[in-house]
Amino acid sequence: MQYQHNFNPSISDEDVFTQIQAEREHIGYYNLVHQETSALKEYASSVNQKNIVVIGIGGSTLGTYAIYKFLKYSKNLTKKLHFLETTDPIDIQSKIKNIDLEDTLFIVISKSGTTIETVSIFKYINSLVTCDKNNSVVITESDSKLNEYAKANNIKSFEIPKNVGGRFSVFSAVGLLPLAIVGIDIDELLFGAKTAYDSFFNKEDTYERIVKKARFFVEYKNSFNINVLFSYSSRLDGFNNWYIQLWGESLGKVDINSTRQGLTPIGIIGPIDQHSFLQLIVEGRRDKTVTVIKVNDFENNLKIPQVELRGLEELNYIDNIEFAYLINKQADATIESIRNLGDIPCDVITIDRVSERSIAALMYEYELLTSVCAKFMYIDAYNQPGVEAGKVILKEKLQTGR
Amino acid sequence: MQYQHNFNPSISDEDVFTQIQAEREHIGYYNLVHQETSALKEYASSVNQKNIVVIGIGGSTLGTYAIYKFLKYSKNLTKKLHFLETTDPIDIQSKIKNIDLEDTLFIVISKSGTTIETVSIFKYINSLVTCDKNNSVVITESDSKLNEYAKANNIKSFEIPKNVGGRFSVFSAVGLLPLAIVGIDIDELLFGAKTAYDSFFNKEDTYERIVKKARFFVEYKNSFNINVLFSYSSRLDGFNNWYIQLWGESLGKVDINSTRQGLTPIGIIGPIDQHSFLQLIVEGRRDKTVTVIKVNDFENNLKIPQVELRGLEELNYIDNIEFAYLINKQADATIESIRNLGDIPCDVITIDRVSERSIAALMYEYELLTSVCAKFMYIDAYNQPGVEAGKVILKEKLQTGR
Repeated sequence: MQYQHNFNPSISDEDVFTQIQAEREHIGYYNLVHQETSALKEYASSVNQKNIVVIGIGGSTLGTYAIYKFLKYSKNLTKKLHFLETTDPIDIQSKIKNIDLEDTLFIVISKSGTTIETVSIFKYINSLVTCDKNNSVVITESDSKLNEYAKANNIKSFEIPKNVGGRFSVFSAVGLLPLAIVGIDIDELLFGAKTAYDSFFNKEDTYERIVKKARFFVEYKNSFNINVLFSYSSRLDGFNNWYIQLWGESLGKVDINSTRQGLTPIGIIGPIDQHSFLQLIVEGRRDKTVTVIKVNDFENNLKIPQVELRGLEELNYIDNIEFAYLINKQADATIESIRNLGDIPCDVITIDRVSERSIAALMYEYELLTSVCAKFMYIDAYNQPGVEAGKVILKEKLQTGR
Repeated sequence: MQYQHNFNPSISDEDVFTQIQAEREHIGYYNLVHQETSALKEYASSVNQKNIVVIGIGGSTLGTYAIYKFLKYSKNLTKKLHFLETTDPIDIQSKIKNIDLEDTLFIVISKSGTTIETVSIFKYINSLVTCDKNNSVVITESDSKLNEYAKANNIKSFEIPKNVGGRFSVFSAVGLLPLAIVGIDIDELLFGAKTAYDSFFNKEDTYERIVKKARFFVEYKNSFNINVLFSYSSRLDGFNNWYIQLWGESLGKVDINSTRQGLTPIGIIGPIDQHSFLQLIVEGRRDKTVTVIKVNDFENNLKIPQVELRGLEELNYIDNIEFAYLINKQADATIESIRNLGDIPCDVITIDRVSERSIAALMYEYELLTSVCAKFMYIDAYNQPGVEAGKVILKEKLQTGR
């Protein structure tokens, strides 16, 4: 008799850690924290244009926007960052309308170098303004067609290493170059990411937290197949969208036993979505975990003034309260009401203050969490075979006009 | 012996239709299509301000924004519509910074009249500019505190009928007043909604479609607990968010047998989210249905120009293609790749053209679909008891400072 199977054996935290350590040698995102940034900073400081337009989609923009949106209100940024992502003509035109293209640097980002959305938009931009080495820069893989274009036109090019996936590329040139150009401190970003890296690989609190959380998500994936990120600040909406791609594309996979895996990410914003999604969390099916993210210090003391509105006196108890205090109390009330139910897994992440270090540490921790979940699920976090079929069909449609 | 139970009996399409007909007598949204609009239009035509700021949250803003976002690029609107929704101080300040408050009409919308976010923001606005009958209008229930405020200050007030829930209120004054003011044809909106109404209640194609779709969603709710709306146009992002509230708050409920129900809505935008969420749909667990929405006529002929990019010649096949054509082919390729898998329920809605009638018909159809699903699920679509506990906790926290 012979028995052949690869039913997932139980895997220990220690096994996962060993696998992640081994993976660190060939999966590129881990070591981005050790990166030398002088070439990026040098280029950034040479940029004179006031507008920076990133042309890219998915992993080429989501991380950059997440960091930019989180920090832009707290920093005195002298340049404005825009993103051209979609082939929707209305979207392209309405965004371009408000940008002085003559005073713009175009950063064309595509890992493969032939992303159809990116090339389409860049072609269109070329018909509006001359694109050359003075107003264009490229970020792509070293052997891509886009890099050939850059070389042929003497345009500066930065590399996305082959072993850094798009959705894990925020701490490569993909994120760091545009962010450095608009005035964000990229060394501080890497410092924050490295804090999470060190704490994880030294098996300190990041390691403990991530392994426990990942094990829970995977063990209960059939009960709680949806993970809700409930961020209590509008400046975290970019982070939410980045998380959705990271989680969805990395974990929606077929495992080694041909079994479909996948945890479904949902990002919502408080208090807005208390008036939209909270009812479903509280009374609906118990298929969701909830992670609440709070910002401890909004660095903002805007107050609800003591204004007497005749008829509305019963709300006078909110007078003289700071909005930042109010939104955090709203978060606390939501957490308490969910915990009181007793059957919804809920954890809370509190960001101390709005800084490069904090957002980078949070994002790097989520990347690690994703990698660890993938190990527990026996899947490859770093590929995305499911989207290839649609690309082939599209190309055929466009070439044959059917 | 006695037997007592209310286990859900099987319910026929005919029973559901009879219940909806009966419900039409006391649930207010159905009959909004028969509304007299002259008072709304008269007020709208009297507004001189250039900026219109809606202060409200959830059902007070989502539907209005959905219609505004869908139509604004195709209409010559002379006024700009803004929304102040959240208590996030950064969000409030960054929005207000770009509005000339002296040339602004404030529309304060709260069904209950005491929504904490709305009153907080309105108090803050009162400290920046004098709010009186010349620059303020109120939309609320007739016996609310906010209406008392309006009366006490001689401010014009429009009513939200008691039996029209916030998330079903887009075709009441809540949506129609701000939309009429910025120049959208609200009679055309109601005409579109009435088309769906007539077709449903005359048991024509809308009825057939909705009842079949609702029955499928409910029968398979334990297999497919997630419903993805995949909209192929950025102008539908407001519609996606409106749908999320409508679906989530209406269907996330405990049924007559104390069993938790709920279908989880997810809204994504194509082609952007092909690079984020599609992998999860294609390879992940089979827990999702997909509804693709396309816009047939973008009323836009922006083209990818014939621009030679040396190195990128292999993409020359996209030259001279209209962006609108491209995005629709991207939608078709996604649909085809999903259908080829054979085990993901997928339907397609095609909007003929960008008009008041089309968006209103679509939204009204979704309201009907929600009501019909609720009947099949033995739940009340129109309440939201799950969010009350959090409000009580918040009030206590603010009043006691704990």
